[in-house]
Amino acid sequence: MSPKITTELLKQLRQVMKSPRYVQEPVQAYIVPSGDAHQSEYIAPCDCRRAFISGFDGSAGTAIVTEQHAAMWTDGRYFLQAANQMDNNWTLMKMGLKDTPTQEDWLVSVLPEGSKVGVDPFIIPADQWKRISKVLRSAGHDLVPVKENLIDTIWTDRPQRPCKPLIVLDLSYTGVTWRDKIIALRSKMAERKVLWFVVTALDEVAWLFNLRGSDVEYNPVFFAYAVIGMNTIRLFIDGDRMMDPAVREHLQLDSTQEPEFKIQVMPYGSILMELQAIGAGLSPKEKVWLSDKASYALTEAIPKAYRYLTPYTPICIAKAVKNALETEGMRRAHIKDAVALCELFNWLEKEVPKGTVTEIIAADKAEEFRSQQKDFVELSFATISSTGPNGAIIHYKPVPETNRTLSVNEIYLLDSGAQYKDGTTDVTRTMHFGTPSAYEKECFTYVLKGHIAVSAAIFPNGTKGHLLDSFARSALWDCGLDYLHGTGHGVGSFLNVHEGPCGISYKTFADEPLEAGMIVSDEPGYYEDGSFGIRIENVVLVIPAETKYNFKNRGSLTFEPLTLVPIQTKMIDVSLLTQKECNWVNDYHQKCREVIGAELERQGRHEALRWLIRETEPLIRVQ
Amino acid sequence: MSPKITTELLKQLRQVMKSPRYVQEPVQAYIVPSGDAHQSEYIAPCDCRRAFISGFDGSAGTAIVTEQHAAMWTDGRYFLQAANQMDNNWTLMKMGLKDTPTQEDWLVSVLPEGSKVGVDPFIIPADQWKRISKVLRSAGHDLVPVKENLIDTIWTDRPQRPCKPLIVLDLSYTGVTWRDKIIALRSKMAERKVLWFVVTALDEVAWLFNLRGSDVEYNPVFFAYAVIGMNTIRLFIDGDRMMDPAVREHLQLDSTQEPEFKIQVMPYGSILMELQAIGAGLSPKEKVWLSDKASYALTEAIPKAYRYLTPYTPICIAKAVKNALETEGMRRAHIKDAVALCELFNWLEKEVPKGTVTEIIAADKAEEFRSQQKDFVELSFATISSTGPNGAIIHYKPVPETNRTLSVNEIYLLDSGAQYKDGTTDVTRTMHFGTPSAYEKECFTYVLKGHIAVSAAIFPNGTKGHLLDSFARSALWDCGLDYLHGTGHGVGSFLNVHEGPCGISYKTFADEPLEAGMIVSDEPGYYEDGSFGIRIENVVLVIPAETKYNFKNRGSLTFEPLTLVPIQTKMIDVSLLTQKECNWVNDYHQKCREVIGAELERQGRHEALRWLIRETEPLIRVQ
Repeated sequence: MSPKITTELLKQLRQVMKSPRYVQEPVQAYIVPSGDAHQSEYIAPCDCRRAFISGFDGSAGTAIVTEQHAAMWTDGRYFLQAANQMDNNWTLMKMGLKDTPTQEDWLVSVLPEGSKVGVDPFIIPADQWKRISKVLRSAGHDLVPVKENLIDTIWTDRPQRPCKPLIVLDLSYTGVTWRDKIIALRSKMAERKVLWFVVTALDEVAWLFNLRGSDVEYNPVFFAYAVIGMNTIRLFIDGDRMMDPAVREHLQLDSTQEPEFKIQVMPYGSILMELQAIGAGLSPKEKVWLSDKASYALTEAIPKAYRYLTPYTPICIAKAVKNALETEGMRRAHIKDAVALCELFNWLEKEVPKGTVTEIIAADKAEEFRSQQKDFVELSFATISSTGPNGAIIHYKPVPETNRTLSVNEIYLLDSGAQYKDGTTDVTRTMHFGTPSAYEKECFTYVLKGHIAVSAAIFPNGTKGHLLDSFARSALWDCGLDYLHGTGHGVGSFLNVHEGPCGISYKTFADEPLEAGMIVSDEPGYYEDGSFGIRIENVVLVIPAETKYNFKNRGSLTFEPLTLVPIQTKMIDVSLLTQKECNWVNDYHQKCREVIGAELERQGRHEALRWLIRETEPLIRVQ
Repeated sequence: MSPKITTELLKQLRQVMKSPRYVQEPVQAYIVPSGDAHQSEYIAPCDCRRAFISGFDGSAGTAIVTEQHAAMWTDGRYFLQAANQMDNNWTLMKMGLKDTPTQEDWLVSVLPEGSKVGVDPFIIPADQWKRISKVLRSAGHDLVPVKENLIDTIWTDRPQRPCKPLIVLDLSYTGVTWRDKIIALRSKMAERKVLWFVVTALDEVAWLFNLRGSDVEYNPVFFAYAVIGMNTIRLFIDGDRMMDPAVREHLQLDSTQEPEFKIQVMPYGSILMELQAIGAGLSPKEKVWLSDKASYALTEAIPKAYRYLTPYTPICIAKAVKNALETEGMRRAHIKDAVALCELFNWLEKEVPKGTVTEIIAADKAEEFRSQQKDFVELSFATISSTGPNGAIIHYKPVPETNRTLSVNEIYLLDSGAQYKDGTTDVTRTMHFGTPSAYEKECFTYVLKGHIAVSAAIFPNGTKGHLLDSFARSALWDCGLDYLHGTGHGVGSFLNVHEGPCGISYKTFADEPLEAGMIVSDEPGYYEDGSFGIRIENVVLVIPAETKYNFKNRGSLTFEPLTLVPIQTKMIDVSLLTQKECNWVNDYHQKCREVIGAELERQGRHEALRWLIRETEPLIRVQ
């Protein structure tokens, strides 16, 4: 893959950074954050400004361009990819490494005295603004909002903002009506004594109204904001999608009803004006609740004294704890997903030795098998189909330039998932279609031990996920190996494949305590640059555990794997497993046989069933 | 132990809270923090204001008194003790439990509109002021500094501030001269472009000047501040201790020398005025470096634009990494300490069955044996000598009212340590002098497994201690048991037994990464209220580890126990140990035999030597 040539673009950007047409005063640096106006992780093409200016299109990264420099901050998942996609104009800033400066410290070190640093106030989250602004100010610089997005001014063929039809989710999927969700939200608002709640995250809008969309690839969301008052509901959304009778019926737009459940539909672009109007009309003690990750522009619309900011909104927290119908849906989705993967791996086993299967073909085949399953909507993220050295690029996506042919001599890593109307999946399996080396098996087995350590962990109610992260690393650490990414993320219910507020990571972020009903991924890995990548990922459900002493009635939790896809036993060095770990693998495979076997049988997929039976033969550990 | 009757005192405090003699306007609440003007954990009697007003004298706790309420926040170590020491006027706020409000949230919930909350600005750290003040302000209240400490106004027999002679530590103990420490500090100041550095923590002043004191019991520190400029050194200290010829010689107060190493000695009480003068004379871009835990009063002396605040000072970080001479000293101290404990446990084994040994007698005996060792100075904290139910009071200190007699029917927990001129010790052993129950052995063994899991952990260079905390809990968690305190704290080198910036805790505090040379404790426990307490604590040194793959040259770390005192094998249920854990215990005991055995031999302590040999017999694990 050749890097994007950005010399001309950077020249243009530096020109507009000084142009009185766009900036009141010249800015000496311009920050291009990763997200959109909703701080989404996955974004629509029209919002891919950082990729446009730099070439680096991973899901996380912030670009900063000064008159002399262009620098890109990204995390361990993307070090290789970013280095490959960017030309020599760019300096890669490897986040998480000890010597890498923060964006603000770097700015202070390179800027001439009294500089202005520009950023689009709709794109930068308020908490980031605050952090960067504070450091800049204390060093004599200024962070300034630039109303017109400077990338957009030089992006001549920028795509339109999508505006696709909506999907209505009925009660059999969501378990709770949108009215009841509004009632619960208002009760949280009353508890905190706030009058208004501003919904800025796209998945929170979708979840609240039991609607889904397809404005952003992989994430079934739609561009909208909502503002909930104690007696009003305002939905800011564009297009004629509100004309859809099913949507009108679902939202009861045309039926008479109590005024506090009457939804006022307003143009997407009017949110700022409306918020400013709300902000201007507040009396002392009247508060507006926003996420501290809401954009600086929207946050500033509410005078500081009236803001109530929290790292996680009550919607985010309620959304994370899946109810019985959502959990049931997630189970169904994972069974269907496993059927598709059994078909795929069975097919790969036959085809790979012929030397005709590329990473792209394998990814397409995975999508094909998934799309045969009921209620399939789309993939939940770009399939990571990577063989050999490509596997070490943690969030690799095969493109024609990098597309490698699968062979019996290399490890193959497939990290993929789908959106079904009943749930979201995300699974990684690492396979060898020939004979793995002793070293490959050794590494795989350490990763497996880490995966099991998390999956089988028992912990008291109220434990935060970050406390479990080291369990995933311990076996690797013992041999001097590690991986530069977190161990798990929250997973939405037919929603974003990455969601807060819980996760399992060495990074001490403000995660909320795990509770029964939450769903996270468990995905330790090991990556050898230039050689191979290994990752074993299940989506797991937090469930109550039975323990001998039950934490003095505080309650015990553990995980139940929702993903039921065989873990390739050929890759396991059984001599490195304890008996307990060996039993875990055998029990897991037994459950795959029973649950997925029954579904393969039901769907008449007999060859895949035979593959499943073969792949789930119990391990035998010689003492 | 009967609680302190505080009705009258609270009445008096509530009067002065409204008295124009002390407050400009009445305050509706008054905060009494735990610390002194240096944010010390251990404090002099004159600073024990929270204990005076409430009766609760644990090392951590904050009291807040309003017109209607009196509430005390403390952590899991002190729940039982605080409940026992306080009368019914007080409400205990159990920090770390889910439903316990923060101080500021509680204030907002109980205060009438527009209240003023008072606090002594010299006692409250600036970061706490900021946090509390922000929440109060957003709820329409005000945090106000009350210059005269209101507790002092009602404390008629308040002791004098101590002012004891200083101890000079020569190079053979410290490894680095104070001049070289000043040079290193100034180079850190130059790096961060600050002109002044304010040393506010007592152990940082002591460490910087290679001096020790005894103003605070257990902590060899003295009341002083220092302000270091690029060319000036100001030491703020009272009394005639600067007249001591050894101190004058050590600090070169009378010899001609370069002006940048000339120490100006100033009165302790003049620090605020001097800082205000420095603050007033600063030009733009001239900064003053302070800990963000420095008092609000001192922090405010420097105008906001000129402040450079960090959670840890460069002194704190430098002090944590022990040099070769300091490490050697710590080893020597721990050998002497182990000799004393072997004597003690041998003595207890003989005496306990007679029924004449109380907790206080045992503690005194421990001190007696320690005091026989070379360079013994004092204890490093109040000895926790607790038997049976008293063991469940995590930071218990025996007093006549609670003093229990050791018996062959109860578990005995001894957490004790000493200050030697060459190092500081802190060790906990849990013993049974009769026959422990199966349940007691089970719990002890889980705690031991946790202790070993941390002690033997291998991790990459740069790992923060909090990532190791769950290793200590895993075996307990598996059975539904846990303990409500952190797993380890930094330990000073003939300095405070608790020091930053590293530690091992589930609390996500801003700990610095572990590096070779740091010294921390490893002390998991288990506590059964009303029955017993178990804790196994070693002081351990961070050392480089050898691993197969060495984290791609990032480097591997592990721990080496400095504490070499047998772990009672009678308490171990060997069937619950893995072979690896069993080997760890046997290797540890082998080292105790070799190192402590040689020293016991050298000191002619033959009976204790025989005890050591008996107690270090290898465990045999039946497969």
